[in-house]
Amino acid sequence: MTATQYAPAAAARRPVPAHHASLVVQGTDRVGIVAAVGGLLSRRGANILSLDQYSDPDTGAFFQRTLFTLDGLQAALPSLREELAEQLAQGFALDFTLRDVSAPKRMAVFASKSDHCLLDLLWRHRRGELPVSIPMVISNHPDVAEEVRAFGIPYFHVPSMGADKSAAEAEHLRLLKDNVDFVVLARYMQILSPGFIEQVGVPIINIHHSFLPAFIGAGPYAKAKERGVKLIGATAHYVTEDLDEGPIIEQDVVRVTHAETANDLKRRGADVERAVLSRAVLWHAEDRVIRNGNHTIVFS
Amino acid sequence: MTATQYAPAAAARRPVPAHHASLVVQGTDRVGIVAAVGGLLSRRGANILSLDQYSDPDTGAFFQRTLFTLDGLQAALPSLREELAEQLAQGFALDFTLRDVSAPKRMAVFASKSDHCLLDLLWRHRRGELPVSIPMVISNHPDVAEEVRAFGIPYFHVPSMGADKSAAEAEHLRLLKDNVDFVVLARYMQILSPGFIEQVGVPIINIHHSFLPAFIGAGPYAKAKERGVKLIGATAHYVTEDLDEGPIIEQDVVRVTHAETANDLKRRGADVERAVLSRAVLWHAEDRVIRNGNHTIVFS
Amino acid sequence: MTATQYAPAAAARRPVPAHHASLVVQGTDRVGIVAAVGGLLSRRGANILSLDQYSDPDTGAFFQRTLFTLDGLQAALPSLREELAEQLAQGFALDFTLRDVSAPKRMAVFASKSDHCLLDLLWRHRRGELPVSIPMVISNHPDVAEEVRAFGIPYFHVPSMGADKSAAEAEHLRLLKDNVDFVVLARYMQILSPGFIEQVGVPIINIHHSFLPAFIGAGPYAKAKERGVKLIGATAHYVTEDLDEGPIIEQDVVRVTHAETANDLKRRGADVERAVLSRAVLWHAEDRVIRNGNHTIVFS
Amino acid sequence: MTATQYAPAAAARRPVPAHHASLVVQGTDRVGIVAAVGGLLSRRGANILSLDQYSDPDTGAFFQRTLFTLDGLQAALPSLREELAEQLAQGFALDFTLRDVSAPKRMAVFASKSDHCLLDLLWRHRRGELPVSIPMVISNHPDVAEEVRAFGIPYFHVPSMGADKSAAEAEHLRLLKDNVDFVVLARYMQILSPGFIEQVGVPIINIHHSFLPAFIGAGPYAKAKERGVKLIGATAHYVTEDLDEGPIIEQDVVRVTHAETANDLKRRGADVERAVLSRAVLWHAEDRVIRNGNHTIVFS
Repeated sequence: MTATQYAPAAAARRPVPAHHASLVVQGTDRVGIVAAVGGLLSRRGANILSLDQYSDPDTGAFFQRTLFTLDGLQAALPSLREELAEQLAQGFALDFTLRDVSAPKRMAVFASKSDHCLLDLLWRHRRGELPVSIPMVISNHPDVAEEVRAFGIPYFHVPSMGADKSAAEAEHLRLLKDNVDFVVLARYMQILSPGFIEQVGVPIINIHHSFLPAFIGAGPYAKAKERGVKLIGATAHYVTEDLDEGPIIEQDVVRVTHAETANDLKRRGADVERAVLSRAVLWHAEDRVIRNGNHTIVFS
Repeated sequence: MTATQYAPAAAARRPVPAHHASLVVQGTDRVGIVAAVGGLLSRRGANILSLDQYSDPDTGAFFQRTLFTLDGLQAALPSLREELAEQLAQGFALDFTLRDVSAPKRMAVFASKSDHCLLDLLWRHRRGELPVSIPMVISNHPDVAEEVRAFGIPYFHVPSMGADKSAAEAEHLRLLKDNVDFVVLARYMQILSPGFIEQVGVPIINIHHSFLPAFIGAGPYAKAKERGVKLIGATAHYVTEDLDEGPIIEQDVVRVTHAETANDLKRRGADVERAVLSRAVLWHAEDRVIRNGNHTIVFS
Repeated sequence: MTATQYAPAAAARRPVPAHHASLVVQGTDRVGIVAAVGGLLSRRGANILSLDQYSDPDTGAFFQRTLFTLDGLQAALPSLREELAEQLAQGFALDFTLRDVSAPKRMAVFASKSDHCLLDLLWRHRRGELPVSIPMVISNHPDVAEEVRAFGIPYFHVPSMGADKSAAEAEHLRLLKDNVDFVVLARYMQILSPGFIEQVGVPIINIHHSFLPAFIGAGPYAKAKERGVKLIGATAHYVTEDLDEGPIIEQDVVRVTHAETANDLKRRGADVERAVLSRAVLWHAEDRVIRNGNHTIVFS
Repeated sequence: MTATQYAPAAAARRPVPAHHASLVVQGTDRVGIVAAVGGLLSRRGANILSLDQYSDPDTGAFFQRTLFTLDGLQAALPSLREELAEQLAQGFALDFTLRDVSAPKRMAVFASKSDHCLLDLLWRHRRGELPVSIPMVISNHPDVAEEVRAFGIPYFHVPSMGADKSAAEAEHLRLLKDNVDFVVLARYMQILSPGFIEQVGVPIINIHHSFLPAFIGAGPYAKAKERGVKLIGATAHYVTEDLDEGPIIEQDVVRVTHAETANDLKRRGADVERAVLSRAVLWHAEDRVIRNGNHTIVFS
């Protein structure tokens, strides 16, 4: 089976008005950037719907997210991109991303046996809450196959093959190549190799079942019970080569008591995990998250 | 004693860098506003530190808050204001407010016998958390006089005189006139007359001890106990002629149980009240709250 | 089709240890109740696992929930119940409920078109988070039939028939009679008649999509948007003849901003609704909620 | 100056009804403990106001807190204590603490330069929210002396004397000896020596400015900023020889954003610190916290 054999899933049902684009700009702050962006968009007749801008007072780093409408957007995109490259990239040495938001980002979901994060994403997608398409779910276990396909979404079983991940990862890369814009690890219980992270070439979002940096590594709920904490949490972050150390996108916690066992914490934590992951996915899908070294700027 | 006899309290200790200004723009959305503001500021050499913009998709209303630095700000303010008036007011029919943020807003606090909200404001001010000056505290009770003066802040006792508030309100107006930029009712237990609200001419912020619109009117904690709610809350809002109906700035809640008496709720609620009020005051002081009819836009 | 034609759904997968019982006692406080209950259980060789007791200082009402283990529980239940009746009912004029918790309560779910609360309950039940059995889902719409049956749970379509609810309610009563221990309205958009509430004879839990008592009645999210609140909430309560006025079991809220439309509030609120309802159902299923007039005691 | 030269501060203003006692029982679970306690209290004519009991299903540890009233409590205490010793200590090998709650616990507060936690405790005490007396505040800095004494509470300045803490700690012990029931470190910036912790002989509560176990050690807000977390927190715990490793009593968090500097986090965190510490102190003062190894049972 090859990744090109199936049709991509239907686009998100959340009605994205036509002619909407997002522009994310990032670099070193200088006088005039906002004016340059605003002027360029204004001359093209674009109307800005929302604009968030932040300059880091310590580092002088500049971040801006602009959502705008423009009649005939699709036809105008190439020349608009050219003009932005000229003004922002050359003029101000800024990086920028311009995106037609009516084309939802394509999200692959990796899962193992736990279905709570996976189902929450599929269910929110079906309700139209997540402006993404989901061309595939990949799992190292067959357990969730039926549930995934009930949502009309292709499921691929790529079994783990022990310590040597190269064959499984090669299959992953073949499935993902050119088919997805980002990957979500929805409680996927395999560690990705540095080589895979590099080759996949798209952002990877993971949900970790603790309030990082507390309880790094495996078994965080058992560790939390052992330490006697009064809150447990979850953390959504971008995956980097350093396990559990990537830029944090979102976190949340829930109150627990002495009367709850490690298993109870796991059950309570599942609710936080799915809530945190769904927010991180939504914000990433809407270009609200900007990576800056090991940090994120989130215009939520 | 007259209001002009005393020196205003020291400015906020929160270090406000010189040459910082905030510009709030409000009106009907049109293509080019962001570019016009950005271009104008850029031509003057101002550097934008943060910019929040929001357009209401339903009503087409436009809101923008811009924080920027400009060398020689104070000298430049008059001509900048003129230019903004020309471009924004005439060109786009927009309202705008330009303010040198190194001059903190002057806040009068009204209190009665309860001191929790009052002391929290004074204490945060002393810590440098609130960029305001506090030229006066006015109370209809003598109870808090000593505490207020211990903070080095003038206290004025204006007793309530029964149903006819005209004499007391006249005294209030005399004290406030030209001395304050806004008024905070920190659990002030007197109802202001419509005439007073109109004549005082500055925004008035109130803290209501319930999660409005639940439990409008007096005795909300007793009503909350009676209804058996599981959360109690507080609401900070701008005062209008309609009691408890003004634009909401901030709200929060805290969880309570069946084991708590109405008095416990009152005590628990006091913590929410002071937290909510202090956030509302901070945001108002930093020009983060824009009134729009009976709503607020809060760029927090 | 009649309600007796189908087999009840499988019991909850949450492993309930055998020989566990819950005893809920309620009445007017007097010296010696705890000792009487403790002594009785102790003499029978029962071991108390957890005990929560609360006496209302204002009204003198007494509430106690005791969870205990007893070898040979099932055989011992009748004589234990007799002894409790003698000591508690006759001796202290107390009401009590003794329940073998290894037999999960049977829960019927009523739904309409919205599936978020319904699916959350079914999904939690499948995960073993809710110690109930679900013998049936009843809906006035066919929309959710397939989803419900995918969980292996019987679905019955009882269409609304306009203003006269008598035929539909008769069908409801026929399905429910002797088959369920409580009913959950999972965003069921029909108002139950007083006669139905009386005849059904089991507790009914409803989820209301606002922080009651704010925004009573229909369209709470539109009203919340109109009022400009900064938090929206949901309330789970027992249904009484007075619409939206029954005893509150659980409430929660989520923060919203000016940028969210009434539709966004609805979407955000759906997350609160399902969380609040699932907690209320869990607590009710575990005998943690005691009704006391229009209030609840919740030993959560 | 010696610790015996001054009169203890006034007792807590929170009206504690006479004849109220708390009984905390702890040990290994066995059938009949609740009955034994209940029977004993009942025979003495005591009325139980609230009872919380918890047995750890994993370890078989038993914990019970009972609040009761008894006419002529003070006279009855010695014989009641004797009877409890006989029945609980000898009969069941349980530890117990019986306390007349009308005599508030005596709390010493240690502080350094930061006043937010200190003032919050003093202010809550004055409002009658904390059922403690405060016989002394000890600080290694003179900064807070005036503020403390304004509350009518004795302040003792015991300067730090570098690495050798023995002289300062000897002075601490002399002040505390027989004068206090517990010690609160309200952002006290000195590390206590193991010898001091042992000799002081009363519980010590500390507030740590992070969500432990994240960011153990110094500078947690800087570390939190560096790691880019989205929530910051505070932890109240009992002090043990292992720094930041003692049993956790209470924790809470607050949401932060990329736009907040490490200094902002510090300011935001101060609010969480004082809230968390005040809850921990209240629960400790009301005998709601039971230590169990490195964990706590909190009947809040």
